[in-house]
Amino acid sequence: MNNTNHTTIFIKMVLDAWQTQNKRVDDLLQTLSDEQWMKETAPGRNTGIYLLGHLTAINDSLFEILEIGNRLHPELDVIFVEAPDKSGQQMPSVETLKKYWTEINSKLTDHFNNIQIDEWLAKHTRVSAEDFAKEPHRNKLNIIINRTAHQAYHLGQINYLKNK
Amino acid sequence: MNNTNHTTIFIKMVLDAWQTQNKRVDDLLQTLSDEQWMKETAPGRNTGIYLLGHLTAINDSLFEILEIGNRLHPELDVIFVEAPDKSGQQMPSVETLKKYWTEINSKLTDHFNNIQIDEWLAKHTRVSAEDFAKEPHRNKLNIIINRTAHQAYHLGQINYLKNK
Repeated sequence: MNNTNHTTIFIKMVLDAWQTQNKRVDDLLQTLSDEQWMKETAPGRNTGIYLLGHLTAINDSLFEILEIGNRLHPELDVIFVEAPDKSGQQMPSVETLKKYWTEINSKLTDHFNNIQIDEWLAKHTRVSAEDFAKEPHRNKLNIIINRTAHQAYHLGQINYLKNK
Repeated sequence: MNNTNHTTIFIKMVLDAWQTQNKRVDDLLQTLSDEQWMKETAPGRNTGIYLLGHLTAINDSLFEILEIGNRLHPELDVIFVEAPDKSGQQMPSVETLKKYWTEINSKLTDHFNNIQIDEWLAKHTRVSAEDFAKEPHRNKLNIIINRTAHQAYHLGQINYLKNK
């Protein structure tokens, strides 16, 4: 196997892992009721709807971080990233967030299938050129690795909505 | 940048992400009391000590899956992988599990620093030669990607022990 093939395989591994976590959210969107999403994942902890909005906003932010286009729903950040749960802000409904989640991931997937190897290894928008020169692992693909762990972290919590 | 450099950077990205999750468990081992570890992460859900034993057993299993040596604590599987929490089996103390966790990860880290690129891309013990020929992304490094998400998933739950 040559090194270009290695690189292609690495990218597939990282994208597959990200899609696996997306798929788990998709599955929960099918199985949990809107009423379950409104509940706290544990006493005094984040609600399901807040975590759904949070994961949706974080995926939406990838358009800008990876420089692949404009965000579809930048308005989510104020509610689901900058503010904590129960901040008193008006949230979109679970139904609306489901729609956003699906649209965002569908569009991201289309883009990801067309990003070339060199582009995945390029600097993203949240690292300075100076830092990137010293730390070339802080590239676009690394963002996907980190976001995969972030999604898994909150999925562990959202799963506590089952049988509630 | 040439392709060998690409591959080296990919491996660093994956190992860094795994170490980040390990470090988060390390930090919780410093901040949560033994009494907190004994509690349920949410009502009716897994206890902290069960999840700590579970993550320890899963990391310990990497010695065999990646073919880098014998496991240090294979006896953990019966309690923390094959059986659910509250199975009635005698668990090691939190103190003992902390010691195991640190020893296992220290030894794994030593090995990981010496694994060569081709070895990371080789077949692990839980995929057949036939399947691996068709799906070369199911290699040793991919195990680390999946285990990173697995650790993050349970860390989301263990974090609910804070302020309990």
